[in-house]
Amino acid sequence: MNELKKKALEYNEGGKISVESKVSLKNQRDLSLAYTPGVAEPSRKIAEDEERVYDYTSKGNTVAVVSDGSAVLGLGNIGGEASLPVMEGKSVLFKLFAGIDAFPICLDKQEESQITKITQSIEPSFGGINLEDITAPKCFKIEEELKKTMNIPVFHDDQHGTAIIVLGAIINSLKLLNKKIGEVKAIISGAGASGIAIAKILKNAGIGELLLVDSEGIIYPQRKNNMNPYKKEIAKKTNPENIQGDLETAMKDSDIFIGVSAPNIVSKDMVKKMKEESIVFAMANPEPEIFPDKVKEAGAQIVGSGRSDYPNQVNNVLGFPGIFRGALDIRASDINEEMKIAAAEALAELARKKIPKEVKEAYPDENLNGFNFDYVIPKPLDARVVPEVAKAVAEAGIKSGVARKKVSPNEVKEKTKEVVSKINS
Amino acid sequence: MNELKKKALEYNEGGKISVESKVSLKNQRDLSLAYTPGVAEPSRKIAEDEERVYDYTSKGNTVAVVSDGSAVLGLGNIGGEASLPVMEGKSVLFKLFAGIDAFPICLDKQEESQITKITQSIEPSFGGINLEDITAPKCFKIEEELKKTMNIPVFHDDQHGTAIIVLGAIINSLKLLNKKIGEVKAIISGAGASGIAIAKILKNAGIGELLLVDSEGIIYPQRKNNMNPYKKEIAKKTNPENIQGDLETAMKDSDIFIGVSAPNIVSKDMVKKMKEESIVFAMANPEPEIFPDKVKEAGAQIVGSGRSDYPNQVNNVLGFPGIFRGALDIRASDINEEMKIAAAEALAELARKKIPKEVKEAYPDENLNGFNFDYVIPKPLDARVVPEVAKAVAEAGIKSGVARKKVSPNEVKEKTKEVVSKINS
Repeated sequence: MNELKKKALEYNEGGKISVESKVSLKNQRDLSLAYTPGVAEPSRKIAEDEERVYDYTSKGNTVAVVSDGSAVLGLGNIGGEASLPVMEGKSVLFKLFAGIDAFPICLDKQEESQITKITQSIEPSFGGINLEDITAPKCFKIEEELKKTMNIPVFHDDQHGTAIIVLGAIINSLKLLNKKIGEVKAIISGAGASGIAIAKILKNAGIGELLLVDSEGIIYPQRKNNMNPYKKEIAKKTNPENIQGDLETAMKDSDIFIGVSAPNIVSKDMVKKMKEESIVFAMANPEPEIFPDKVKEAGAQIVGSGRSDYPNQVNNVLGFPGIFRGALDIRASDINEEMKIAAAEALAELARKKIPKEVKEAYPDENLNGFNFDYVIPKPLDARVVPEVAKAVAEAGIKSGVARKKVSPNEVKEKTKEVVSKINS
Repeated sequence: MNELKKKALEYNEGGKISVESKVSLKNQRDLSLAYTPGVAEPSRKIAEDEERVYDYTSKGNTVAVVSDGSAVLGLGNIGGEASLPVMEGKSVLFKLFAGIDAFPICLDKQEESQITKITQSIEPSFGGINLEDITAPKCFKIEEELKKTMNIPVFHDDQHGTAIIVLGAIINSLKLLNKKIGEVKAIISGAGASGIAIAKILKNAGIGELLLVDSEGIIYPQRKNNMNPYKKEIAKKTNPENIQGDLETAMKDSDIFIGVSAPNIVSKDMVKKMKEESIVFAMANPEPEIFPDKVKEAGAQIVGSGRSDYPNQVNNVLGFPGIFRGALDIRASDINEEMKIAAAEALAELARKKIPKEVKEAYPDENLNGFNFDYVIPKPLDARVVPEVAKAVAEAGIKSGVARKKVSPNEVKEKTKEVVSKINS
């Protein structure tokens, strides 16, 4: 067993989360306040006015990380039990990055309707739902249905988390290369959860041209093989002319390649045939579609991956903690497109700012010089990320009318900073 | 608003529980161990051998407190959201009394089959299920079904928690009065979740005679009004002769009255007509079937209630923390009758021991002199309770063959002591 694997087993031993009491039980009086008979009073208040559940319980700060373990990164369909270390890890990140109480709800049912029903049913306990590692296309239907029927924000991180961070990276890359988003052509390799979500967010951000490619080649509306309603829908929006061909054909003369597909399917030659000053984000994990050094050799200007040992790492932890922090703090009923784009823009903007000493110290092996080709998105351990994203998301949520609580976005930012620094001190 | 209500709202503000990380995320290395790519290794190990989920996650110490809020103590059917303060309170007790990570799963579905399915589905995340405040008779069917289908222990506290503590109190009361359990007659008022469970445990413990009474009078097999299969089943066992009559008739010449029904339905006169040296546990809450002082005036020898302001309080917190502690520590597949009776006997035995100084100090307003008519069960804030109950339950679980992990009962006791004292220090 290699060193990382061994260390990982040690690190995960006994689990990574616990449930703690925020109150003490020192005497008979405490006992009567924490449980019967005192606890009847907050219960009564909530029965009278359901919204008061946010005052007298932990619901407002609690997120369910829901998974059936059907599409665990790099491992595939390993089921609920085996996905638990991943969901606990996610809960740890929620807590330490954003002060959110996240709890893993791992299911041993994998039917779409079951996952939907179970998630709906547990709504009283939670202030938000983070869907995770659920296979496409069922994840689309589940999220769609939950968004329609639940009164708390629902967010499938594999779709939108990646999409938001990629958009942030693209905004900055285009800025560095002096290209306009409305004039560029992007190719997405992979049409699973994140591929389709990236396509949607790029369309909403006004991308010029966009083609999705999967193992059968370019996706076009009239294609019959290996299609589903979600591929068909996105094909209509991105490829109404029914352009056909393989990945190589698609990439020719494109400005941007985004990979969320399979290892080693892109050659240097394919990158060479892209437009001048091209952008390549090859994010298959752990082995990318093409390794960053090869991309550079092939002449692309900006390159990113999902790996932490190369520059421009697209890491979902840049997104979900701040996104949920912002959504919970305004008691949002939804995490909508406006909030997602605001998160991407906040990430892009932050990457253009001066890098503080502490961030440089957290990455002693990297040469962090500020906004440039090798730094188009912030680093995961940058403590500024979550407060800025939370602020932007809160602001967009208020503007777009999904906030149910009055707070100022700046207050969200300051409170987030405070909470997180307290947790990690 | 009275003082207790006001204090209770303050105490419950912002909720009573949080989810905490047991690991730290100080650098890139931690990040790769807590989440991707390191976390893949424990997931892979569990996918190979599901039992290893107990090694690499928090499952083994985590209990779901599941409720639909349909029968909340003193409040009735207030629904999932309003029941959350109660379930959080329960989670606090689990943690502070037994070091167990309990998490409230409050449902907004109340159909029996839904509750069953949802609870089954979340099995991967939990090491045990505590059902709570679910209305009878559906709670019987749900528990029955879950016990059959789940690989982790399932326990409906409203049924068995109360039953176990009542049995402990009865064992000691009979000892003080020099009566034999096989020769006494007991009346249970109330045939909901706890009434029926008390009847079952008393039958299993060998009680002489037993009658259940509800709002329609004595329950008998041929009765047609206000019956259900569970009442019918218990009537066949306790009242095969089809004895009929009201509560007053039933209580005449009985040794023991156990009330889990409604306030003020028992008069002094009814108690007077019981046998010499009678035992009355009137546990309707907050107002008992008859107040303890009246019971004493009527001449009963031993009296208890559900209230903390009278002696012999039947408080479920004497049971569930230690019961689950014992069950989790031996990785029990079930909490069976043997384990329940062992818990009752452990409580009874502990009440016969000398009371330590610390317990007396925790109850400065009470006159605690050791085993006597006013002290037949231990006090909730006695730190010896949970370790003793855990030990007894573990021992009975091992003997009855439901343990899946080898540990010594004494080890369970010592570990429990240690964990709990650490949490509360």
